[in-house]
Amino acid sequence: MRSIVCHAARDLRIENSTVSDPGEGQLRVRVAFGGICGSDLHYYQHGGFGTVRIRQAMALGHEVSGVVERLGAGVSGWQPGQRIAISPSRPCGHCRVCQAGQHNHCLHMRFFGSAMPFPHIQGAFSEQIIIESHQAHPIADHLSLSEAALAEPLSVGLHAIARAGSVLGQQVLVTGCGPIGSLLIAALRRAGAGRIVAADIAELPLQCARAMGADETIDLSQEGDRMAPYKLDKGQFDTVFEASGSEAALQLGLDVIRPRGVLITVGMGGDIRLPMTQLVAKEVDLRGTFRFHPEFATAVRFLNEGLVDGRPVITRIVPFENALSAFDLAADKRQSLKVQIAFADA
Amino acid sequence: MRSIVCHAARDLRIENSTVSDPGEGQLRVRVAFGGICGSDLHYYQHGGFGTVRIRQAMALGHEVSGVVERLGAGVSGWQPGQRIAISPSRPCGHCRVCQAGQHNHCLHMRFFGSAMPFPHIQGAFSEQIIIESHQAHPIADHLSLSEAALAEPLSVGLHAIARAGSVLGQQVLVTGCGPIGSLLIAALRRAGAGRIVAADIAELPLQCARAMGADETIDLSQEGDRMAPYKLDKGQFDTVFEASGSEAALQLGLDVIRPRGVLITVGMGGDIRLPMTQLVAKEVDLRGTFRFHPEFATAVRFLNEGLVDGRPVITRIVPFENALSAFDLAADKRQSLKVQIAFADA
Amino acid sequence: MRSIVCHAARDLRIENSTVSDPGEGQLRVRVAFGGICGSDLHYYQHGGFGTVRIRQAMALGHEVSGVVERLGAGVSGWQPGQRIAISPSRPCGHCRVCQAGQHNHCLHMRFFGSAMPFPHIQGAFSEQIIIESHQAHPIADHLSLSEAALAEPLSVGLHAIARAGSVLGQQVLVTGCGPIGSLLIAALRRAGAGRIVAADIAELPLQCARAMGADETIDLSQEGDRMAPYKLDKGQFDTVFEASGSEAALQLGLDVIRPRGVLITVGMGGDIRLPMTQLVAKEVDLRGTFRFHPEFATAVRFLNEGLVDGRPVITRIVPFENALSAFDLAADKRQSLKVQIAFADA
Amino acid sequence: MRSIVCHAARDLRIENSTVSDPGEGQLRVRVAFGGICGSDLHYYQHGGFGTVRIRQAMALGHEVSGVVERLGAGVSGWQPGQRIAISPSRPCGHCRVCQAGQHNHCLHMRFFGSAMPFPHIQGAFSEQIIIESHQAHPIADHLSLSEAALAEPLSVGLHAIARAGSVLGQQVLVTGCGPIGSLLIAALRRAGAGRIVAADIAELPLQCARAMGADETIDLSQEGDRMAPYKLDKGQFDTVFEASGSEAALQLGLDVIRPRGVLITVGMGGDIRLPMTQLVAKEVDLRGTFRFHPEFATAVRFLNEGLVDGRPVITRIVPFENALSAFDLAADKRQSLKVQIAFADA
Repeated sequence: MRSIVCHAARDLRIENSTVSDPGEGQLRVRVAFGGICGSDLHYYQHGGFGTVRIRQAMALGHEVSGVVERLGAGVSGWQPGQRIAISPSRPCGHCRVCQAGQHNHCLHMRFFGSAMPFPHIQGAFSEQIIIESHQAHPIADHLSLSEAALAEPLSVGLHAIARAGSVLGQQVLVTGCGPIGSLLIAALRRAGAGRIVAADIAELPLQCARAMGADETIDLSQEGDRMAPYKLDKGQFDTVFEASGSEAALQLGLDVIRPRGVLITVGMGGDIRLPMTQLVAKEVDLRGTFRFHPEFATAVRFLNEGLVDGRPVITRIVPFENALSAFDLAADKRQSLKVQIAFADA
Repeated sequence: MRSIVCHAARDLRIENSTVSDPGEGQLRVRVAFGGICGSDLHYYQHGGFGTVRIRQAMALGHEVSGVVERLGAGVSGWQPGQRIAISPSRPCGHCRVCQAGQHNHCLHMRFFGSAMPFPHIQGAFSEQIIIESHQAHPIADHLSLSEAALAEPLSVGLHAIARAGSVLGQQVLVTGCGPIGSLLIAALRRAGAGRIVAADIAELPLQCARAMGADETIDLSQEGDRMAPYKLDKGQFDTVFEASGSEAALQLGLDVIRPRGVLITVGMGGDIRLPMTQLVAKEVDLRGTFRFHPEFATAVRFLNEGLVDGRPVITRIVPFENALSAFDLAADKRQSLKVQIAFADA
Repeated sequence: MRSIVCHAARDLRIENSTVSDPGEGQLRVRVAFGGICGSDLHYYQHGGFGTVRIRQAMALGHEVSGVVERLGAGVSGWQPGQRIAISPSRPCGHCRVCQAGQHNHCLHMRFFGSAMPFPHIQGAFSEQIIIESHQAHPIADHLSLSEAALAEPLSVGLHAIARAGSVLGQQVLVTGCGPIGSLLIAALRRAGAGRIVAADIAELPLQCARAMGADETIDLSQEGDRMAPYKLDKGQFDTVFEASGSEAALQLGLDVIRPRGVLITVGMGGDIRLPMTQLVAKEVDLRGTFRFHPEFATAVRFLNEGLVDGRPVITRIVPFENALSAFDLAADKRQSLKVQIAFADA
Repeated sequence: MRSIVCHAARDLRIENSTVSDPGEGQLRVRVAFGGICGSDLHYYQHGGFGTVRIRQAMALGHEVSGVVERLGAGVSGWQPGQRIAISPSRPCGHCRVCQAGQHNHCLHMRFFGSAMPFPHIQGAFSEQIIIESHQAHPIADHLSLSEAALAEPLSVGLHAIARAGSVLGQQVLVTGCGPIGSLLIAALRRAGAGRIVAADIAELPLQCARAMGADETIDLSQEGDRMAPYKLDKGQFDTVFEASGSEAALQLGLDVIRPRGVLITVGMGGDIRLPMTQLVAKEVDLRGTFRFHPEFATAVRFLNEGLVDGRPVITRIVPFENALSAFDLAADKRQSLKVQIAFADA
């Protein structure tokens, strides 16, 4: 059994290992597809992000789908061959934070492929993995395993919306239309946003944003201030989702948001210069959003029912043999949105 | 110019009158379609509802679309011939309640076709009417004027959802699938509800509910308790919308809602027997919803953009000449959902 | 060791039994004071309430304070002789509802002295009891054990306020000024309510309401409609707490609450006739409230810090020997608010 | 009639002018006391803050009390001699933002003593001023006019709490215990905060914080990390109010706040370096708060009823003749909290 293991910045290896038998309440799964996420890229390119650093070999990956292979003791309701989307979220359920219903902040979270805790939590970019049965979500016959691997980034978008509260009928701006931003746009359309404006500095993500349901797209790399009308009368957007991680985009968000608007920062940027006078005078509500937990079930449901179609974000599927090159491809934002690795001949 | 005027219970007449010129800030509109609402029926059948009684002749109607005919002084941005959906909501904007942003509760509301205040507010079932320009909402070329007249009941559904808060990913029950319930289902689907169960005691509304997006429909007139699984573990629905006005449906809602669930009562029933022990022990949140105000713009937008398709709820369009018979037709729930009157040869 | 055991309506006995040793994580406590609650009275007078019936002998009581006597294995941070308030709330922490942070609705709740589950959960009206260490809350030196036994009904009030959301600066009405209503008034004053009006049909509770901080008290048994000014302009109260369990009081609440006001029903009444038209037309938000969980720590803190003074609600302390007569005394609302039983010569 | 007029940074003059007669709906008031606010100091010391600059002569001041002198046409319910607190907030009531009930963000706000709009809005540091009658709030006999002038900064604190939502039972941190921070602490105590920790770098404000109700005070200028226990387990404070305007305090707030905690920034700092990774990973909710509107009535009520005692924040009252020196005194944070100017021999 082979895994994609990161040892340090720019040191990514395909390595052999063995998979154990599933324990009580667990499933062994043959992984089908795995999407490369921004945090995977950060580990690969920089060995981490912010204060989080890779300090031991760690298999990457947390956006995976697969096929059930074997059931552990006491597991019912599953059978070998079942096609599933896999949630990477494994909260403890017991700590103070879980008991408050905020499982994504679990003090003992074991989220796939994370160097936040030490020892690190191994990721899911392996040919076979062991999961808790509650991580498995069956997918509909019509849904491909490739699409099923989008349930994870779609969950991120759904949780970001949950953080914002109801967006029904609202005028919404999304800055940054990579895979997260684009899936977020589809989720916003499904969540009843009234009008969605998408902004980016490149054409490929803006094309995707349109395909995912944006009503208007704005190329911020072009001359002229197409955002000017949205700055009038203290700002026009009810809610802004900042998914680019850029300081300029956050500043733009503060300029165009209405008083008491909600500005959600989706990405994990570093330090940012924030004009506090503006945030205060408009009483902006700047909220971080981080991962998800119950939203994974909703994401799978939306994909299963055809209520969200994520296919436009997948720009390339790379066979496992070329997995390492897939990371370089994913890092090139001009030609790639979501790059997935095919772990098996599905 | 002719109007449909109610003088008392069962005393509905088509009467001649004249329309004035539009005043400052107003438009004169040729009415195209008018939907018959439950409250119109109450006036026609019973002369009112609850403590509200018709005490003087009153033109009925508040679900209308039309074509702009003439502009009053100071009106810009409009031109004769423009096709519009018309909001019946005219709050004062100055009272304590309006200043709190709760315009649907305006102390001086002049909502079309309402006998709540005295003198009554005349309705819009006339061949021509005068409106404030802010009541007019332009419709898309592809949208028929018949569909545009659904903006009003769709707004009721959107406001009911706004009262519930975010329904994103939730399991939702709608009891009562007449025009309001069915348009509410479409709005819930658009607002991101995860799973929608619709219940009624007749087949026609359940068919409509399915067409509008319900995942499961339950005929409560059939034997057996198909709701039994939803009563388990203190109840399974996150949110319940009671749109039938029946005591049994409200009781059912209390049985199947989860602890701290939100139960929205959409209809204007009379007195109802409420099992307080159950409401208290489950900490149910029972909320009334009444009309709408900002939601009208959202409803028109959703119809214009094809994000909600209201056509399945229109079961009959009756020419103005037969308008009186249209009321009897609308009252027959076994064969009618929304009945509209065609005021002109559109 | 003696307990106060209810066998059926009007069949209350003082019985001998033995207390076990505290298990792991548990404490054995010598009970000091126990307040008689409305539900204790319902068991004693009627054998239950609503559909809840006593089906086996059950010790009553859940409002108790005491002194730590002995520690079970693995318990640290406690020592014999420590004076404590005791929370009767024992949720499982594992079920779906607990995982959502709504512990008062735990599917497996073992709340002291409750006939809701079967076998019933034995109450705390015993000379000695075994508790989980998390049920124990140390009290301040200046606080009497009698006052400490008010932490439980004060928690009910605090949770009712939590259900209402922020009351800061609001105009609030409380109907029913028994022990729960009066402690709620003190909690409302502490929670920043702007103006508190208290209503009842008897003088004793209204006196107590004044002592607890009500700005105005209204005796509803008197002639004349002193509530008339509060009905103007669709109603004047932002929030209403109905703590009397009477249908007339609920109706009054609907009359005087402002549009979109929140009406909290604190008590466990039976069926009630609800004028749905009024609830709908004013978009009232009628919310049940049931017990508490995290609020117990806050209640103890407020008592410890002198931020709430509960003494005016205690109208009588009865020695354990006369405990049975204490129930009859508590049932006489004209002369009693909170009646407590003294289990030991404190 | 004399006024305190700012012409530019460091150019503050006492100037003569004349007061007009009160117009319809207005009152003429003899000003009694005026508190010097941080923004007054910014105008005096720097000629403005952020992008806001004094571009024409402007009377300063917005924290004033006074005595009614003369009534304009159509004013009823007032009489000469009445002692009042004066709200500086004058929203238009008509714009989009007012209609949404967010009057503090009015597009045409005429807040006393503000250089935000041009022409600037003249302030209230004059011996006589004209106000709208809705700006006047009668004060209780026992309340001094000096205390009444605290209603304005207390309103800022109340609005900051309103921005946070309910704080009932919460553990709260306040960084920066100047007049705003200290009055906020009193408001938090009144709003039911469970435990209040106050932090500052000087002893005088910490003394005041204790007098206003803080449970624990921390001098951040001392060695050792007394905040360390509050950083454990992802942070311990439910809500943090940052009222110092310092970058270090904001960073501290992010360190000690619990996941999904609310961090309110009260002050009008300049640009600030924000560690976005931390805000995102803990899903902090960073909210600006700006002025107030309905809270002024609540502030007066709390002062009138003795529910908040603001006296400890007033460190000096300076006669009008020495008004200019009062500004230098107010700027010295080591010896001054709130400095007030006495406009008349009250």
